[in-house]
Amino acid sequence: MPARIFPTAQDAEAAFYEALERSDLELMMAVWSEDEDIVCIHPGGERLVGQDQVRDSWRQIFAAGTRARLHVTRQVAIAGPMVAVHSLHENFSVPGEKHPLQPVVATNVYLRTAAGWRMIAHHGSPAPGSAEPPPPPPKILH
Amino acid sequence: MPARIFPTAQDAEAAFYEALERSDLELMMAVWSEDEDIVCIHPGGERLVGQDQVRDSWRQIFAAGTRARLHVTRQVAIAGPMVAVHSLHENFSVPGEKHPLQPVVATNVYLRTAAGWRMIAHHGSPAPGSAEPPPPPPKILH
Repeated sequence: MPARIFPTAQDAEAAFYEALERSDLELMMAVWSEDEDIVCIHPGGERLVGQDQVRDSWRQIFAAGTRARLHVTRQVAIAGPMVAVHSLHENFSVPGEKHPLQPVVATNVYLRTAAGWRMIAHHGSPAPGSAEPPPPPPKILH
Repeated sequence: MPARIFPTAQDAEAAFYEALERSDLELMMAVWSEDEDIVCIHPGGERLVGQDQVRDSWRQIFAAGTRARLHVTRQVAIAGPMVAVHSLHENFSVPGEKHPLQPVVATNVYLRTAAGWRMIAHHGSPAPGSAEPPPPPPKILH
């Protein structure tokens, strides 16, 4: 399968969160730049640098098998022709869990490369307060 | 006094940490972009957006009067012609305090603007482990 091309930073971000929700390691790594200095900080975790450390961390997270639903809120984007910085809250909910999990505030940085937009940095940390409830399912009219 | 011009992202970063160590609000705000979507996340704090929120937060931090020595370690830089993403550990030490404080892992994003390099995003969060000790003072030979 050829590598995915993301025409916009928003496309790359959508794929990032789709990969996270589905525990899809290949899609996750298709989002990241091939730059050796990519940086990833999971909430409360060590700072990770480079393809190997970043891939290994996602592999471990996905192998743990926790399936959570995720929706992002409070998006703020600073967008230029070559770079995009997105700030947002990640709200996780685990089916059957009554109490919402603590949200994560994330800073995501994307660069426009020859192969489309790619993530070069992800910094997540626990945010104060509670996760926002997921949006209601769309109404079905017929 | 005219606004400071930072010819490189590293210059802007040096001024950022100088302002933090000296509690210098004017220097701090000279580092930040005038973009209204600047984003600042202090460790464990709410995500702040825009000049007013960012300036107020630093004013409160500096008014608290805690003077800590600061040195940064583990710098990783992703640098392009228009953007620079710096990842590092901030190590604080308070004179008289025996135990080192918990370090902060920070992601700093700078853009090249018409008025030199400016910060557009700062995300700090507690890092695992202990702060690294400050470097020894330089030897004086005579």
